[in-house]
Amino acid sequence: MNGAESLLQTLVACGVDTCFTNPGTSEMHFVAALDRVPGVRAILGLQENVVTGAADGYARMLGKPAATLLHLGPGLANGLANLHNAKRAGSPMVNVIGDHATVHAHLEAPLASDVEGVARPFSHWVRTSPSARSVASDAAEAVAAAQGPPGRIASLILPADTAWNESAGPVEPVAKPSSQAPPSSAIDAVAKALRSGEPAGIVLNGGGLGASELRLAAQIREATNVELFCETFFARLPRGVSHPAIERLPYFGEQCAERIAHLKHLVLVHAKPPVSFFAYPGKPSELTAAHTQVHVLVEPNEDAGLALDSLASALGVDLSQAPPLPAASRPQRPTGALNPVAIATAVGALLPEAAIVVDEANTSGAALLPCTAGGPDHDWMYTCGGAIGQGMPAATGAAVACPDRRVLSLQADGSAMYTLQSLWTQARCGLDVTTVIFSNRSYAILNVELSRVGAQGSETARDLFDLARPELDFARLAEGMGVPACRATTAEEFATALEQSFSEPGPQLIDAVL
Amino acid sequence: MNGAESLLQTLVACGVDTCFTNPGTSEMHFVAALDRVPGVRAILGLQENVVTGAADGYARMLGKPAATLLHLGPGLANGLANLHNAKRAGSPMVNVIGDHATVHAHLEAPLASDVEGVARPFSHWVRTSPSARSVASDAAEAVAAAQGPPGRIASLILPADTAWNESAGPVEPVAKPSSQAPPSSAIDAVAKALRSGEPAGIVLNGGGLGASELRLAAQIREATNVELFCETFFARLPRGVSHPAIERLPYFGEQCAERIAHLKHLVLVHAKPPVSFFAYPGKPSELTAAHTQVHVLVEPNEDAGLALDSLASALGVDLSQAPPLPAASRPQRPTGALNPVAIATAVGALLPEAAIVVDEANTSGAALLPCTAGGPDHDWMYTCGGAIGQGMPAATGAAVACPDRRVLSLQADGSAMYTLQSLWTQARCGLDVTTVIFSNRSYAILNVELSRVGAQGSETARDLFDLARPELDFARLAEGMGVPACRATTAEEFATALEQSFSEPGPQLIDAVL
Repeated sequence: MNGAESLLQTLVACGVDTCFTNPGTSEMHFVAALDRVPGVRAILGLQENVVTGAADGYARMLGKPAATLLHLGPGLANGLANLHNAKRAGSPMVNVIGDHATVHAHLEAPLASDVEGVARPFSHWVRTSPSARSVASDAAEAVAAAQGPPGRIASLILPADTAWNESAGPVEPVAKPSSQAPPSSAIDAVAKALRSGEPAGIVLNGGGLGASELRLAAQIREATNVELFCETFFARLPRGVSHPAIERLPYFGEQCAERIAHLKHLVLVHAKPPVSFFAYPGKPSELTAAHTQVHVLVEPNEDAGLALDSLASALGVDLSQAPPLPAASRPQRPTGALNPVAIATAVGALLPEAAIVVDEANTSGAALLPCTAGGPDHDWMYTCGGAIGQGMPAATGAAVACPDRRVLSLQADGSAMYTLQSLWTQARCGLDVTTVIFSNRSYAILNVELSRVGAQGSETARDLFDLARPELDFARLAEGMGVPACRATTAEEFATALEQSFSEPGPQLIDAVL
Repeated sequence: MNGAESLLQTLVACGVDTCFTNPGTSEMHFVAALDRVPGVRAILGLQENVVTGAADGYARMLGKPAATLLHLGPGLANGLANLHNAKRAGSPMVNVIGDHATVHAHLEAPLASDVEGVARPFSHWVRTSPSARSVASDAAEAVAAAQGPPGRIASLILPADTAWNESAGPVEPVAKPSSQAPPSSAIDAVAKALRSGEPAGIVLNGGGLGASELRLAAQIREATNVELFCETFFARLPRGVSHPAIERLPYFGEQCAERIAHLKHLVLVHAKPPVSFFAYPGKPSELTAAHTQVHVLVEPNEDAGLALDSLASALGVDLSQAPPLPAASRPQRPTGALNPVAIATAVGALLPEAAIVVDEANTSGAALLPCTAGGPDHDWMYTCGGAIGQGMPAATGAAVACPDRRVLSLQADGSAMYTLQSLWTQARCGLDVTTVIFSNRSYAILNVELSRVGAQGSETARDLFDLARPELDFARLAEGMGVPACRATTAEEFATALEQSFSEPGPQLIDAVL
C-alpha cells in the first residue's frame, strides 16, 4: 500500500468522505488511490477557489470537514481567499496539497514554491509530511486539528514521493477533543449582569447559533429582557417558524454603534466585540460604547450550548416553556418593477421548506431577511471573511452536503464573476441550486464606500466600479457552463422563474436585471 | 497632498503609467487620487489573477513594470498564481496592496490577514509602509526593486491611513542599477569550451532572448557549430523571418535528456540547468548527463548582450556577417478535419505581421512553432511558472502594452476556465486580442501524466480529467462577457474565422472544437 492509499484509508476512517479537488501531476497517486479506496467521493472544480469555497459550504452544513486536493503552491494560492472565509466562519477543512517529490524540491522546477509559506496565513495547522510512512498519521492529526473545536483549517502538504512510496498502512483516528463548559465564573458574571436589570445584549455566532443554542438564548431573553443579536456575518443561522427570531447587527459601523449604545452589558457567545468592517478617517473602529461592559460568556473552544444551559439554570429560567416563535407569514408575490425588494418579496413568498440560503447579495440584500422571517424553516449563510466570491462555491458545497434540500444562491454580480465556474460543478453533479444574480451592473458597495471614506474625486472611481461596459449576460454565461438560465426584468417574470426553478431538479440561474 | 497622491506622483515620476486593478474600500483614496494625478491609466479586472497576469504580459512586452492595485490579503491571494508565473518569467511588477488602517489592524475585522505573509512566497521585495510620509519613498524603492535586473516582484502594502493622511509629497526615482558584464573568467571558460571542438550547446532565456542577443548567439553558432536552445518555457522570444531560429528544449524530461545527452559543454545564458517539470518514480530529475560540464556564462543579474558580445570577440566571430535567417515560408491554409495541426497550419498561414502570440495551448500546441517559423516577425510567450490561467490575462496585458499589434491568445480549455474573466477586460478596453480555445474537453496533459507517473487505477482519474460533462460552450461564455465569438468545427471554418478576426479591431474568440 502506497502513501496515498494509506492517507485515503485514514481519511475514510476519520469520517472524511468528500474531496473537492482540482488535481495535477503531483497529486496523481492520490487520484489513482481514489479508485482503490472506497468511501471518498471526488468532486471537480474548475478553479481552486471553487474547491475551497465548496468545502466551506459543505462543512457549515454537516459540521465535519471535507478534504480538498490541491496542486502545489499555485493551486493552493488560487483557493486561499475562500480558505480565509472558511477560517473566519470556523469551518473545519482538511487541505491536502501535493508538492514536488522530496528529491525534486531543491531543483527549482517551474512549479516549485514555498508551499508551507503559502498555506500559513490562512491555515491554523500546517505540516509537510516527511515520508510515506508518516502520511497516514499526519492525516489523522490533520483531521483532528480541523475539528477543533472550533472548526479550523488544516493544511497537509504531500510531496509526491510520500504518495507513491510504500507506506506503513492506515492509522486509527485521533480522538477529537470535546469542547468544555466555560468556567463558572464566566456564567456567574453574566448571570449577575442579566439580573441587574441594566440594559444588556447577547451577541451570538458560531456554535451559539445552533438550533438548540438559539432556543436557549431566546428562553433567557424571555426571562430577562436581554436583547439578542447575531453578528453581521454569521456562518449559519436556522430561521423560519420553528426558530426564535434574532436581530442581525448592522453592517455599517455607525449604525451598529448606535444600536448597541444603550447597553450596559454586552455578552459574547462565540462572537467578537463589534468592530467596523473597515476603518474610516475620524470614525471609531471599536463600536462598543465606553460605558458598556463586555463579558465573554463562552470562548470559541468552549461549548456554547452548555454555557447557555448553565446560564439559564443560574437565572432560574424555566426551560420547559417554549420561547416565542415567528408567526407564519409570507409576503404576497410581487408585481411590477424588478428591484431588490421585489426579489426579496418573491423569495419570501416562494422559499421552499428546508431551503439553504447562501447570501452574497451584498448591497442588494437588505430586504431578504425581513421577507423570509415568517417562512418555512431554512438555514441562512453569509460570507464571514469579506472576500467576495464565496457564495457560489459555498452553495455548491452545501448542495453536495444536503442533496435533499434546495439551495438558493443569492449573488451580487460583481462577486459572482469571481467564482462563476461553480456553475459548471453544479451542472456536472446535478445539484439542486437556484442561483439568482442581482444584476445592478456595478460594485455598488464601493460607490457607497467612496463617499464614506471621505475620498475626493470620482470620475475614475465611478468608472472602476461600473460593470455595465460591456454588460455581463449571466444567462449566456450560465448556459455556457451547462446550467439552464433565464433573464427576468419584471417582478412577475422573476417570481415565475423562481417558482419554476424550485419545482425542477438540478441547477438553474436567474439573471435578475435591476 | 495625501499619501495616495504622493504615491501616485512618485509612480508616474518612476515611469509607471499603467495600473491593473480590482480595488476595494481600503484602496479608495488611491482610486480617488487617480482622478487628481494625471499620467496613470487604470484598467479593471474582474478577478485579481487577471490583474496580475495582465501586468506580467504588459511587462514582458515593454520591459518595465505596471502597477497593480489589490484589495487586502484576500485580493492579493487571488492574484498569487500569476505572481508566481511572473516571478518565474523575470517580469518586473509593482503591487500596491491596500490594508486596514494601522489603528484598525489589531481588531481582527473580517478582512484582516497577514498581508506580508501572503505576499512573501511570490515576491522578491515586500514592505508595509509605516506612514503617509514614507509612502512615496517606499514606492520609489519598490519600482527600483522591481526593475532588478532581472525583473522582480515588488509588493508594497499600503495601510489605508497611509493613503489618506497628509504626506511629505512625491520623491524622485531611485536610480535603477544597471546590469553588469559577467567576469572575464566566465567568458574565457566558455570560449575555451567552444574552441575545443567538443559538442557544446547554449541554453538561453530571459535577457538572452532579446533580438540582438539572439542574433549574437546565432553568429557564435555559425562560427563554432555550438547548438542553440531556448528553455522550454520562455518569457518572450522574437521569431519570424528577421530572427535566427532557435530550438526549444523538449517538455518531457526523458526527451530533453536524450536531446542534450551528447553535449560535453552546456552554456547557460539567463537559463537554469535543465530539470524535469515534475519528478517521476525511478526517473532522474536532473537532465544534464554526468559527462556534460555546465558553464554559467551570464547570471540573471548580468547583461546577456555584453556577455555574448564578449564571447564573440574572444572567439574572433565576425559580427558584420549576418547569421542565417529562416526562409520565408507559410503553410497552405488547411482543409478538412479540425485538429491541433490544422489550427497550427491556419495560424502559420494567416499570422499577421508583428503579432504577439501568447501560447497556453498546452498539449494541443506542439505543431504551432514549426508552422510559424517562416512567418512574418512576431513575439511568442509561454507561461513560465506552470500555473495555468496565465495566458488570457497575459494576452490582455500585452494588448494594453502594444495597442498597434494583434495579440493571438492560444488557449487550452482547462486553463481558459481559470481566468476567463480576462475577456471582459478585453471587451471593455476594445483590445485587439484573438482568442482561440483548443476545446478538447479534458485536462489532456493529466491523462498523459497519469501513465507517466506509474499510477494505477483510472476510472476516477479519467473522470476528474474530463471536461465534457457538461460541455463548455466558449462562444456563449465569451458573448456573455461582451466578446464576439464563433464556433469552428472544420479547418476551413477555423481559417475563415481567424482571418476575419485578424481583419477587425477589438477582441474575438474562436471556439475550436477538437
